[in-house]
Amino acid sequence: MFEFVIGRDKLLEKIKDLVARKRYAELRGLLLPLEGADIAAIFEDLEDHDLPLVFRLLPKEQAAEVFVELDSDEQEMLIQGFSNTELKEVLDELYLDDTVDIVEEMPANVVKRILMHSDPEMRRNINDILKYPEDSAGSIMTTEFVDLKKDMTVADALKRIRRTGPDKETINVCYVIDTNRRLIGVLSIRTLLLAEEDDIIGDIMEQNFISVRTLDDQEQVARSLSKYSFLALPVVDTEERLVGIVTVDDAMDVLQEEVTEDIEKMAAILPSDKPYLKTSIWETFKARIPWLLLLMISATFTGQIISSFENALAAATVLTAYIPMLMDTGGNCGSQASVTVIRGISLNEIEFSDIFRVIWKEIRVAVICGITLAAANFVKLLLIDRLLFQNELVTIPVACVICITMVCTVLCAKIVGCTLPLLAKKIGFDPAVMASPFITTIVDAISLLIYFQFASAILGL
Amino acid sequence: MFEFVIGRDKLLEKIKDLVARKRYAELRGLLLPLEGADIAAIFEDLEDHDLPLVFRLLPKEQAAEVFVELDSDEQEMLIQGFSNTELKEVLDELYLDDTVDIVEEMPANVVKRILMHSDPEMRRNINDILKYPEDSAGSIMTTEFVDLKKDMTVADALKRIRRTGPDKETINVCYVIDTNRRLIGVLSIRTLLLAEEDDIIGDIMEQNFISVRTLDDQEQVARSLSKYSFLALPVVDTEERLVGIVTVDDAMDVLQEEVTEDIEKMAAILPSDKPYLKTSIWETFKARIPWLLLLMISATFTGQIISSFENALAAATVLTAYIPMLMDTGGNCGSQASVTVIRGISLNEIEFSDIFRVIWKEIRVAVICGITLAAANFVKLLLIDRLLFQNELVTIPVACVICITMVCTVLCAKIVGCTLPLLAKKIGFDPAVMASPFITTIVDAISLLIYFQFASAILGL
Repeated sequence: MFEFVIGRDKLLEKIKDLVARKRYAELRGLLLPLEGADIAAIFEDLEDHDLPLVFRLLPKEQAAEVFVELDSDEQEMLIQGFSNTELKEVLDELYLDDTVDIVEEMPANVVKRILMHSDPEMRRNINDILKYPEDSAGSIMTTEFVDLKKDMTVADALKRIRRTGPDKETINVCYVIDTNRRLIGVLSIRTLLLAEEDDIIGDIMEQNFISVRTLDDQEQVARSLSKYSFLALPVVDTEERLVGIVTVDDAMDVLQEEVTEDIEKMAAILPSDKPYLKTSIWETFKARIPWLLLLMISATFTGQIISSFENALAAATVLTAYIPMLMDTGGNCGSQASVTVIRGISLNEIEFSDIFRVIWKEIRVAVICGITLAAANFVKLLLIDRLLFQNELVTIPVACVICITMVCTVLCAKIVGCTLPLLAKKIGFDPAVMASPFITTIVDAISLLIYFQFASAILGL
Repeated sequence: MFEFVIGRDKLLEKIKDLVARKRYAELRGLLLPLEGADIAAIFEDLEDHDLPLVFRLLPKEQAAEVFVELDSDEQEMLIQGFSNTELKEVLDELYLDDTVDIVEEMPANVVKRILMHSDPEMRRNINDILKYPEDSAGSIMTTEFVDLKKDMTVADALKRIRRTGPDKETINVCYVIDTNRRLIGVLSIRTLLLAEEDDIIGDIMEQNFISVRTLDDQEQVARSLSKYSFLALPVVDTEERLVGIVTVDDAMDVLQEEVTEDIEKMAAILPSDKPYLKTSIWETFKARIPWLLLLMISATFTGQIISSFENALAAATVLTAYIPMLMDTGGNCGSQASVTVIRGISLNEIEFSDIFRVIWKEIRVAVICGITLAAANFVKLLLIDRLLFQNELVTIPVACVICITMVCTVLCAKIVGCTLPLLAKKIGFDPAVMASPFITTIVDAISLLIYFQFASAILGL
């Protein structure tokens, strides 16, 4: 693997060279031992007009593996160039859930061509899955699973797996259904292999299994798979009939996407599902500007607070210099608390009912943090600002105002930071939106209000 | 699954009630159908003195499943209470990699007891894995895999799997080794089952496989597993000898942990591997205070900048009110760019060699964002602040200073935000540390310098 990463640029060079010199047999030999995902990565760096040519060199099965891993732009380009026979060949090799993923990204005319060249059963299955809402278990499941009956023997079951296995996404877990297609048991290939030939499936199957519903949220489904360390989870409809399975590789992709979305939201970006370097300037702009505008406007309230204390500031100009430090520290404290709680919520470690435990914990942490920061600040103010830089305006009362403000700001910031994500979750908002930038804006205003209150009280402004 | 979440509190009530009334048979019946992970979650809410009692009700195999899922505090408590026979029973049921995970978390006296009651082979294997550095592939692998020889027939191989399978972590992928234990091929159970009984393993095995080294970073290994959609990856030593495998469930856990770490670092928190509610106040404090102190001290530079322009501010007090808005917007723009790039780096979408493409993209996005924000701001300044609030100090030159500063700040923030994570990566630092709080502190200083430069130039202060 790591040899591959290091050698990638060289490999790309070599491939381009072979294409230019039309040494196709050699090129094919070079690609054959590689994994689909790696070839796809190389294809993205090839010239567009070379791509169909190189793609056609691959054997059918490998071609399908590579095709699945390509970005939708490249997939579309290849499909547009395919003859009908070529398209059918690639489609025949794809698993159903991958075909559905591709169909979801393609423009209408391409979708029509794909459906036209799928066999009738595949077409019906694609349409079935497309019905399910985005982000639901139904939309990421595959219907290509192994189903068994409970009165089969192990030998019958193995025969069935040998017969139907090649078209299934996985044979590692098999599902036992009754005559109404209701799911009644789950069986791993390991149990099956370790059993005796004449054991009855109904006797050895696991009857205590976990299943999900077609409309369950894909992130929750992926988290369950990870929590229980399963390789697949069965998806049932409202009548407990087995309609599909979600496999662990798709669950991993879902978790990665959801994490990226969460991180983007935490940084005040509207989530996108394209890699950064593939996103156009305009799309990036549209993802970033809404929050920037909103936060800019709310930050003007902070400005209003400063304006309304203009006289106090004019009387003690030294106070202005410490505004950024107080605001930044407040913002950092708030974002530490909020981000920790947001992550806890998405890992199902923290629930709304924990809110008082969380607040009580944050209060205690805030007090220790606040006092430590204030103490460090007090020493710095008097030793460095007053003694070293000879700033006579930094008197002990001024230092007291700054340090007391620090403690109170940290306390407020931590409480606001841990409470807002939980409240957001409660009222059905996405907690991730309540991260740093949002908290910062609120905490800025709070810290200034506290600052000027103490300044008025202690310095008598 | 979802029924379980909803019913959890009720279930806990019921269990506590059955414990109190000593109705153990009924309690056992209640627990039997549940998954290990779910029982473990319930155990964490039980009273400490009830835990060993309820644990002993579980059948051996289920007890082991639950034990693995418990937090290390509870595991330690249970082990301390186990008789030697009980300890041996639980250990016998555990997979090697789970035992290693437990050993790593236990205090020395418990480790000694565990090693004393493992059989000699297990003990040697545990010690072997403990040798590997934390976060390496070796530290998360298991040595319980199925190995085959290339001259076996499929029937031989199936016989071997039936014989040794029960002790293996997975039989879904088998590994073919030569007489020196060098890995020469990989074979899925599906290929094996679909082959003819007298096929030779050497002919049907996959010779183009991906393997990792014992010292490879666990995150990279987990990403490879996810990228190639594998169920397990073989781990080889420097002489290509197969020493273990990493399975997909462990890879998922690694990815989740690494993401949590990244998110914590982005929020200026030192990463911890304990769930939030399990972390003590003191640990949370220690994880948060270093960055708070560092960032507080660096924020004082921002204060220095304000101090040095005190006269300018005194002459045009109106400028002070817009400092928070400029600083916040700069910080938000910078963190959008940095967080996007950090995530891109950890998903291997962006590399250092892309730095100029990234900067060029951010410059263009920054120009559009900056102009939009400045335009919105200009309108707001003149319509709301000047006309509505009758603030006569907000003249057109003042509005120009603020808006030009806005454009320049956004531009600098985006460039700094996208560059620092890539530079950090290049010099071997963790890019995630270069997120919002760090960028904010730098951008604060930059935005103030720009502000006062334009103020001096345009307003002639």
